[in-house]
Amino acid sequence: MAKHNAFYAQSGGVSSVINASACGVIETCRQHSDRIGHLYAGHNGIIGALTEDLIDVGQESDEAIAALRHTPGGAFGSCRYKLKGIDTHRVQYERLIEVFQAHDIRYFFYNGGGDSADTCLKVSQLSERMGYPLQAIHVAKTVDNDLPLTDNSPGFGSVAKYIATSIREAALDVASMCATSTKVFVMEAMGRHAGWIAAAGALAGGEGAAPPHMVIFPEVPFDRRRVMRKVDETVKQYGYCVIVVSEGARYEDGSFLADAGNTDAFGHRQLGGVAPTLAGMVKQDLGYKYHWSVPDYLQRSARHLASRVDVEQAYAVGVRAVECALEGKNAIMPAIRRDSQSPYSWSIFDAPLADIANQEKFMPADFIREDGFGITQPCRDYLEPLIQGEDFPPFVNGMPDYAKLKLATVPKKLAPFEI
Amino acid sequence: MAKHNAFYAQSGGVSSVINASACGVIETCRQHSDRIGHLYAGHNGIIGALTEDLIDVGQESDEAIAALRHTPGGAFGSCRYKLKGIDTHRVQYERLIEVFQAHDIRYFFYNGGGDSADTCLKVSQLSERMGYPLQAIHVAKTVDNDLPLTDNSPGFGSVAKYIATSIREAALDVASMCATSTKVFVMEAMGRHAGWIAAAGALAGGEGAAPPHMVIFPEVPFDRRRVMRKVDETVKQYGYCVIVVSEGARYEDGSFLADAGNTDAFGHRQLGGVAPTLAGMVKQDLGYKYHWSVPDYLQRSARHLASRVDVEQAYAVGVRAVECALEGKNAIMPAIRRDSQSPYSWSIFDAPLADIANQEKFMPADFIREDGFGITQPCRDYLEPLIQGEDFPPFVNGMPDYAKLKLATVPKKLAPFEI
Repeated sequence: MAKHNAFYAQSGGVSSVINASACGVIETCRQHSDRIGHLYAGHNGIIGALTEDLIDVGQESDEAIAALRHTPGGAFGSCRYKLKGIDTHRVQYERLIEVFQAHDIRYFFYNGGGDSADTCLKVSQLSERMGYPLQAIHVAKTVDNDLPLTDNSPGFGSVAKYIATSIREAALDVASMCATSTKVFVMEAMGRHAGWIAAAGALAGGEGAAPPHMVIFPEVPFDRRRVMRKVDETVKQYGYCVIVVSEGARYEDGSFLADAGNTDAFGHRQLGGVAPTLAGMVKQDLGYKYHWSVPDYLQRSARHLASRVDVEQAYAVGVRAVECALEGKNAIMPAIRRDSQSPYSWSIFDAPLADIANQEKFMPADFIREDGFGITQPCRDYLEPLIQGEDFPPFVNGMPDYAKLKLATVPKKLAPFEI
Repeated sequence: MAKHNAFYAQSGGVSSVINASACGVIETCRQHSDRIGHLYAGHNGIIGALTEDLIDVGQESDEAIAALRHTPGGAFGSCRYKLKGIDTHRVQYERLIEVFQAHDIRYFFYNGGGDSADTCLKVSQLSERMGYPLQAIHVAKTVDNDLPLTDNSPGFGSVAKYIATSIREAALDVASMCATSTKVFVMEAMGRHAGWIAAAGALAGGEGAAPPHMVIFPEVPFDRRRVMRKVDETVKQYGYCVIVVSEGARYEDGSFLADAGNTDAFGHRQLGGVAPTLAGMVKQDLGYKYHWSVPDYLQRSARHLASRVDVEQAYAVGVRAVECALEGKNAIMPAIRRDSQSPYSWSIFDAPLADIANQEKFMPADFIREDGFGITQPCRDYLEPLIQGEDFPPFVNGMPDYAKLKLATVPKKLAPFEI
């Protein structure tokens, strides 16, 4: 069969395992050098395609590509940029065709979450709608775990493991100090729309005396009096209270806690300031000494604490994406199926991208405990397999040794394009 | 020789390796059962001694004690409580003698930092000043690395490794996103009085293009215009700017950044809010999109990422403390000597506690780069050996498996005592 080139790019917020997917894509392309000639990476996602800002992946050594498997962040640069509709913004699509044609690109792999899946879906229409023969395959990635159809999203398992481990460790600290010092500790977890990451904190314990004693979900309207009563009861019963709060925690009327007047000294709304807001309420209503933590990007880049299951799945969806393309498929996202719960086993299946783009998967209602402050057994059963196994990166001189790529630019063939 | 009992307690802010010191003390006591009968742990530090709240360490299995070596937090409870002077508060010392006598305690091991060394020093005066035959040995512990005489403090190496690793990982995230999203990332490091922990962030890079691009030290008066100019230059040169800021960052007049009007929605000063304060300045002065992180307790409890050197030293000072006691010493703190820089080697020597209590070791001036935003080669040479090696805890079911002790209470023999 004819040999053509491939394009790969990363999109949206990155994770500690998105490069493991890149590794799967690249290594599989290299195994099929009879069918896939050059692999070009878009610098900063789809923007790299639009601006013809391409990275020549072929210049990276096999060792450097293998190291991507244990390297966090997005090695080729990511972007927050969503393609507009093909009918209203035809010029963008014509530009994509121009770039793809200039570099003989017939395979398109896009690595991202729900918004990025929409971009990939739009690109997948190039062949049918505009006659350019391209196969677009989406490579699933999101720490938010909100992609539909797939049992879980690559990236989530590792952030879940980080949050559960961190709250277990910090809780031991608080337990040591609570007799004479900090009594309430609040840690903020990512997840603006769904409580998946906060829920994972409960894997550290989350029942009775075992911290975290409370999880505050976006799915449960925040009732300050109820929350404070529970904090107070917990301190009185166990001597301290450890809380995981989702950044998406919100009031009955839908407004976020962090939006409710919590501005910094300069009148700017703080990003990710739910933990200090909640800690402030504890101080004001109950008078307890508190500490709070906002790990922010640390949680989604903590490759040193990645879940082995997550790394393997991230790699596998990358591999399958290339296989799909070689099988002539288009508008597909390799997804994860849970074949067995105990022992946990999984496989990959091909999900139609049209059913994925712009959809969000929320936590099932029966995953949240009746009192609203913890998770149920079904939730625990769902989450636990996803954090299994360790996959420590190599350490050199006391620190994780992460991939350093050459990122050689592909010479441009076209005139510049303004996006 | 006669057999007597020993007392061990933990004091001050805990660390991820204070229990490794406990493990060293306990295992060494067990090896000398001919000289040391029972080992009692004070529940919540010296308070446990004053209130006769003692834990019977003998009831813990060898396996549980071995697991302390890889367990963060203070297993026996810590406290922030400083003994008053022997002359003004004689009743407290009489009480200590009463408790020690009731339980035949002649060896006193106190595990803590500078304030705790003061308590240990006061207890060491019981024999000379009040005629009770007791040997008090201090076991060094502080993430702040501010104990004098010792080359470094057990606890610091692990928090240094965590901060350096976390900023390396988060920086990869920011580098991926900076083209279309976050351009400035600010991470806050502990250390109210000295910049040791913030300095460790520079081990991730800290020169030229390698993040962190800036470290903000308590030792360098904060000049908003200078700092903002450097942030702006860095973003313009590299596309993004990654900053480690010490919680102790302060203005020329000595006031903390976090005290300078940064109050939460309810008018309370936020604890550890330097990172959001600095991020707010970036937004206001430069308009860049920012993210910030405050790891707080996560950094000092992250046993999953401990430095092996730190764990070994923490254990060793515990071992040596018991040996000192058995050699008849009093008012001593086993300290760490750097015997060789490259390859790094160290040994333990006995430092006089009187020269340690209430002293703080600050960063040498030549450890901070001339521009005030980074570290020098001597600082790098000093810090690097301290983060070497990994010592991962065992993982069970995807999470670190930490020691669970029985913490059996020793029956009280005395009337209650109000502290």
